[in-house]
Amino acid sequence: MPVGTVASVKGVPQDILEGLGAQIILGNTYHLYLRPGVETVRKMGGLHGFMSWRRAILTDSGGFQVFSLSELRQVTEEGVTFRSHLDGSSHFFSPQNAIEAQIGLGADIIMAFDECTEYPADQTRMRESMQMTARWAARSKRYFEEHKHEVPWTGVAADAFVRDAARGSAFYPRGGEKMPEALNAPEAPGLRPSGPTNASAPARAGQTQALFGIVQGGMDRSLRKESAERTIEIGFPGYAIGGLSVGEPRELTREIVESTLEHLPKDKPRYLMGVGTPEEIVEYANLGVDMMDCVLPTRAARHGLLFTSRGKVSIKQARYAQDPGPIDPNCGCKVCQRYSRAYLRHLYASNEVLAQVLNTVHNLSFYLDTMQRVRHSISLGEEYRFLSGAGHDRNLEL
Amino acid sequence: MPVGTVASVKGVPQDILEGLGAQIILGNTYHLYLRPGVETVRKMGGLHGFMSWRRAILTDSGGFQVFSLSELRQVTEEGVTFRSHLDGSSHFFSPQNAIEAQIGLGADIIMAFDECTEYPADQTRMRESMQMTARWAARSKRYFEEHKHEVPWTGVAADAFVRDAARGSAFYPRGGEKMPEALNAPEAPGLRPSGPTNASAPARAGQTQALFGIVQGGMDRSLRKESAERTIEIGFPGYAIGGLSVGEPRELTREIVESTLEHLPKDKPRYLMGVGTPEEIVEYANLGVDMMDCVLPTRAARHGLLFTSRGKVSIKQARYAQDPGPIDPNCGCKVCQRYSRAYLRHLYASNEVLAQVLNTVHNLSFYLDTMQRVRHSISLGEEYRFLSGAGHDRNLEL
Repeated sequence: MPVGTVASVKGVPQDILEGLGAQIILGNTYHLYLRPGVETVRKMGGLHGFMSWRRAILTDSGGFQVFSLSELRQVTEEGVTFRSHLDGSSHFFSPQNAIEAQIGLGADIIMAFDECTEYPADQTRMRESMQMTARWAARSKRYFEEHKHEVPWTGVAADAFVRDAARGSAFYPRGGEKMPEALNAPEAPGLRPSGPTNASAPARAGQTQALFGIVQGGMDRSLRKESAERTIEIGFPGYAIGGLSVGEPRELTREIVESTLEHLPKDKPRYLMGVGTPEEIVEYANLGVDMMDCVLPTRAARHGLLFTSRGKVSIKQARYAQDPGPIDPNCGCKVCQRYSRAYLRHLYASNEVLAQVLNTVHNLSFYLDTMQRVRHSISLGEEYRFLSGAGHDRNLEL
Repeated sequence: MPVGTVASVKGVPQDILEGLGAQIILGNTYHLYLRPGVETVRKMGGLHGFMSWRRAILTDSGGFQVFSLSELRQVTEEGVTFRSHLDGSSHFFSPQNAIEAQIGLGADIIMAFDECTEYPADQTRMRESMQMTARWAARSKRYFEEHKHEVPWTGVAADAFVRDAARGSAFYPRGGEKMPEALNAPEAPGLRPSGPTNASAPARAGQTQALFGIVQGGMDRSLRKESAERTIEIGFPGYAIGGLSVGEPRELTREIVESTLEHLPKDKPRYLMGVGTPEEIVEYANLGVDMMDCVLPTRAARHGLLFTSRGKVSIKQARYAQDPGPIDPNCGCKVCQRYSRAYLRHLYASNEVLAQVLNTVHNLSFYLDTMQRVRHSISLGEEYRFLSGAGHDRNLEL
C-alpha cells in the first residue's frame, strides 16, 4: 500500500497512481486529524470524496505517529495526550476518538487504537503495553459497533474491496484464486470533482468500514501469541502485526512475524505494518502476509534512491550525468520507458520538482510490480524470488 | 510557450504537457549552460533527446538572465562577463558563444544574443544599447551560418514546426489557414529513453535550426523602428520584440508592441518575449503577435495563484477549505475534472508537492486553451475576447 500521508501520495496525481495499479493506499489519521481536520474531510464525503480516489483506502489509528512524531505525550489507561508537531497545540486520542476520527475520514479499512511499544523494552513493559493495547482494542471495537453507521460514504465503489478484505485474503489471491471482485468492480461513475456526492451514491445499504485489530507484544514470542489470542477473541475481520520495524535487527523482525502469523487465522487478511524493502515485502508475502505499507519507496525516491531489478541506484551520483540508459532496463514503467538516468540525475541535481514526481512513480511501479509477481507466483503455488544477477546487490537478494 | 527553464516545465511530466496540447516549450540557455552544461545536453542528442520532448523547443539567448540574475557583469562590445548565480564562477557570453551554446542545446528555434536595455534608461543609453544589439545580431547570424551544421539533432520530428515557423505565422493560423503541418507531423517513433539516438534519426538532410533576431530600442518608438529595420536588413526567419515587461507601465508596453509590429514582416513569426497575463496574451495576439512565453502561469501556480474564466483564484485562502467545486467550472482540464478547491487548498496549505503539480497543470491548461480559442477566432476572422460575467474580475477583462 503506497502511503498517502495527508491524502496525497507525495508528488503523484491520482490518475497516475491508478495507472500504476495501486489497489489501495494508506492515509495517516494523526496527520489528517491535524490538517485539514476530520470535519473537513467528512464534509467532503470522506477521504474518497476529498482526494477523489475511487479505490480502497486504509487509515492507521494515529497511534504510531502520536508515539513517534509528537512531543510531550502522556499515556494513561484512558488514552494519550500529545502536542501537535505542527503548532504545539494539545490533543487527546483515546480508542474512542481515534475510531471516531477514522469513521469521519471514511476509509474502507480502519485500525484499532494501539500502543506501539518502543524498542528495546523490558519484559514488564512489553507485557503491560500489550495488555493495554488489548483493552484499547476492545474499546475500539465497542465504539466502532455503536457508531459505524456514521461513515460519510459517498459514491465510491471500494465496497467490493472491503468485502474482499473482510472475508479473507481474497484480494491477494492465494492457491489459484482468481482476480478478486474488488479489482473487477466498476468504479463509481460521475465522481467529479471531489466533494460530497451522496445524492448520486450507489446503494450501500448495510455496508460500512472494516475495523482491523492490531497485535503487539514487543519482541517476545509468547507475548505476541497472547496478544494474537486476545485480539482474535475480541474478533475482527482482519489482523495487523504492529510494533515491528522500530529499530530491531531484521532477523528478529522475521522471527516475530513468522511466529505471530502462526496464531492468526489464515482466512482473514494479515497485515504487517510499516515494512519494508523490496526483498522484505517479498519475504513476508511468502511467509503469508497479505498487506503491507511503507514510506520507503516514496521517501527514498525523494532522496534520489531508486529501486531496480539489479539493486539500488543513487541517481544523484555524478557517474549518471551522461548515462543514456533508463533507471532499470527491466522496468516497463512510464519513467523507464521515456527518461534517461542522465536526465533524472540532472533533475535531482537541479532540485527540480519533476525529480520527485518521476522518481516516486518509478519506485512505486517497482514495488507494485514486485507484489504483482508475488501474487502470480502464489497463484501458481510457487515462491517468488528476485532474480539474482551479476549486477544485483547482494543485500537486495532474498 | 510554457517555460521549461532547465529542461523541465517545473513539476509537469512531459506526457502531461503533451496532453495539454503544448506545441512548443522554451528552455533558458543561461540556466542550461550552467547546469547540466551544454556538453552534456549535446551528447544526449540536444534538448529533444535529453528531456525526451518530441515537439518543438525554443531557447533564449541567455542575455536576459545574464542581465537579470547574474552578478558583477561587465559589458563590452565583445560580450558580457558574468558570475554564475549558483556558485559565483566567472563566465563569458559573446554573440558567438551564445549561439555556440544554443547550437549545442539543439532547440528548433534559437535567438540572437542581445542586450536587454534596462528601464528606465535615457535616450543615449537606449540608442547605444540598441545599436550594440544590432551589431551583436550580425555577429550572431555570421557565427550561426558557419556552424549551424553542428546541431546534434536526433530523431525528433520538430522539423515541420521549424519549417512552419520559418515560413511565417503558419503555426498560429490566421485568416482561415488550416492546421499547420507541424501539428499534423507524426512524432518520431522509438525515441526512448532520452539520449543520443542519431542511429535511428529520420533523414534531416539540409535541415537545421531557425535563428530569430531580436528588436530592442527601449521605450522609444523611433529607436524601435530603427532596430526593426536594421534587424530585418541582417535577415532572419523570425523576429522577436525584446526588452519589454521590464517594469514599464502596461500602456507603454502595448504602445511599443503596436508600433514595433508595424515594422516587422507579417509573413514571418513575430515573437513577443516575456509576456504575460491571460488578458495580455489575448491582447497581443489580436495585435498580430504569433508567439509569446512567460513564467507567469507556472510561477503563479507555485504560489497558489490560479487563472480562471472568472478571474484569479488564490487557492491558499481559508474560504476554499470546504469548497467542493472545481477551480474553474468552465475548464475541462484534468484537474478541474477531478479535484475540488477544498482538496487543492489543503494540498497547498500542507506544502504538498502535488499542489504545485496540479496547480501548474491547470494554469497551463488555461493559457493553452485561451490561445487555442484565440487561434480559432482568428481563423474565423474575429477578435477573441474573454467573456465578461458577474464573477469576472474587472482587471482580467480585456
